[in-house]
Amino acid sequence: MSHRKVTIQDLAKHLNVNPSTVSRGLNPDTRHLISPRTATRIRKAAEEFGYYPNRSAYALKKNRSLTIGILIPNIQNSVFPPMIRGMEQIFLPRRYTAIIANTEDDPELERSAVEHLKSLNVDGFIIATATRSDKLVAELNEEKYPVVLLNRTVDNADVNQVLSDEADGIRQALEHLVALGHSRIAHVAGPQIVSTGFRRRQAFNSYARELGLVLSDDLQAITSAFSEAEGYSGCVQLLDKGADFTALVAGNDLIALGCLDALRDHGLACPNDVSIIGYNNMPMLERMSPALTTVAIEHGEMGCDAARTILELLNQPASRSRTILLKPKLIIRGSTRLISSKDPKSFTPNESRRDTVGG
Amino acid sequence: MSHRKVTIQDLAKHLNVNPSTVSRGLNPDTRHLISPRTATRIRKAAEEFGYYPNRSAYALKKNRSLTIGILIPNIQNSVFPPMIRGMEQIFLPRRYTAIIANTEDDPELERSAVEHLKSLNVDGFIIATATRSDKLVAELNEEKYPVVLLNRTVDNADVNQVLSDEADGIRQALEHLVALGHSRIAHVAGPQIVSTGFRRRQAFNSYARELGLVLSDDLQAITSAFSEAEGYSGCVQLLDKGADFTALVAGNDLIALGCLDALRDHGLACPNDVSIIGYNNMPMLERMSPALTTVAIEHGEMGCDAARTILELLNQPASRSRTILLKPKLIIRGSTRLISSKDPKSFTPNESRRDTVGG
Repeated sequence: MSHRKVTIQDLAKHLNVNPSTVSRGLNPDTRHLISPRTATRIRKAAEEFGYYPNRSAYALKKNRSLTIGILIPNIQNSVFPPMIRGMEQIFLPRRYTAIIANTEDDPELERSAVEHLKSLNVDGFIIATATRSDKLVAELNEEKYPVVLLNRTVDNADVNQVLSDEADGIRQALEHLVALGHSRIAHVAGPQIVSTGFRRRQAFNSYARELGLVLSDDLQAITSAFSEAEGYSGCVQLLDKGADFTALVAGNDLIALGCLDALRDHGLACPNDVSIIGYNNMPMLERMSPALTTVAIEHGEMGCDAARTILELLNQPASRSRTILLKPKLIIRGSTRLISSKDPKSFTPNESRRDTVGG
Repeated sequence: MSHRKVTIQDLAKHLNVNPSTVSRGLNPDTRHLISPRTATRIRKAAEEFGYYPNRSAYALKKNRSLTIGILIPNIQNSVFPPMIRGMEQIFLPRRYTAIIANTEDDPELERSAVEHLKSLNVDGFIIATATRSDKLVAELNEEKYPVVLLNRTVDNADVNQVLSDEADGIRQALEHLVALGHSRIAHVAGPQIVSTGFRRRQAFNSYARELGLVLSDDLQAITSAFSEAEGYSGCVQLLDKGADFTALVAGNDLIALGCLDALRDHGLACPNDVSIIGYNNMPMLERMSPALTTVAIEHGEMGCDAARTILELLNQPASRSRTILLKPKLIIRGSTRLISSKDPKSFTPNESRRDTVGG
């Protein structure tokens, strides 16, 4: 492939400019130093001649591998692909490569993935798998690896992180339900060893108190995974002990789907008997019947921010740790409904309610 | 980290076996040469002492980077994450790393991704982005890179590939519809520049003829992308020219969702007025109303097979090219219905049918 032999010098000669100008034009970080018109000419010539930068030489000069290790808990959870896509939008034009490891939320797989990524000499890590007391994160920090936590964070540590504001999401969910007349609201929480599950539950309790809602252990269940199966069991637990509620906030959308199934299997309809709110706004929820009300998170934007942050860390290792907190947004759909303020009686699941299903 | 200094010699001494035995036990390719009991003892000791293999030395010895470049057309299409997960299940225990590039079905991004992966010295490529006349695939073959095509393939070329049997999937879909009494069946096909869209349409025409169905250009539309928006336009095209059909086979699930929306916007209900079949069995279809009948593909298995095939190619570069063809499976749900054989009249969409919607 003769393509490969095109150099910056060739392009400079062809364009009748200085090689350093070509070099600047090809580097997104220095492109602003030359005129936009020249930058465009350089880019077009590079494309035309099939020039591609000698990445290895660049990496050698910078003493970097230009790769970032990414730990993803479950690539089949639709939360993560848009985050990965966001990262790539930042990395690609800067010649960085994301090396993605899918850890299946398994601490052993996570550890071997980190060792593996270290052996590939990654320049840093973006970690979406953190538990609240994550030993690996602590070790990587001790070893002075640049690390950015994404979506999930650790307790009491000075880390760089890009998170969604869990408390604000839960506040929006609860205020919506209160405005619809609900006061007995259950929470089927996500796993408490990860910050998302923990913080959403903390926020639930705090705002429930603030909004004057019924607070009772009977109205809460805690799952051990963000999954439909766990959501189902969590909701069954509540129903089995006769919990009395008109609305339910789930730890995430998958848990909400499991709760929906559990309610249906107990002869309860959503939203007629119970209003439900999920979390994440995963795809396809709008096509369900009823469509699920949920808290939408800026997954793509979070991925971009995490990528930008790790690149900044590489350039300024001494800079102080920073937190980027993105606001979520409640998406109101058919799974939440107004209950009459004149008829605020809630159901008791132990009574037969089949007559009202679909009513 | 003192962990890192543990060597094969240390483990051998601790276990009182030969270092070569430890080495065999740690390598999945040679593990069968020693007793399972010894292999287990070695694995446990390696874990206990935090031994992790010196990957760089191994790579150097084999003259390999132990990385495989993976080209994915769109990581947000739920078809691809399970394929990636399947690959990782094969790569991880063999110390290989998948480097994933998401090309957004953009030929320019695809080309720059390949150059980028080459500059990372990947040992080979798994390509899920191929068009039927893919120049990049041809170039990589000329340059003797080990390449495995996944899901999509090229026309008339001697390549290694892991595919789903598109013809068989369409046959199952059409036979199901014929058994339900349908004879006027429309096809909103996927893009014809990729083999999946092309082969499904070829199969549609071939089996429609074989099954004695009505064959007419009026019953077909071709989209330019596997997307809901394109499915919507394709179906609107059919309806606007007054196409007369009782069932529709979509090029994939996303196209099917777009068709559903177009039918609804024209006052037609699924399955009462039109039965619809998708393709891929993406997540959440079973929660729609009606739940979408679709052709399920073994995504995870295809990823595993592609990973196994590329590793075999690396070990035996001279072996002849092979095709692995997996059978899909029709999943019957609520979007297809029996139409009375005594009342086989089909609808004409130009007539108002609003009165029957939901009936």
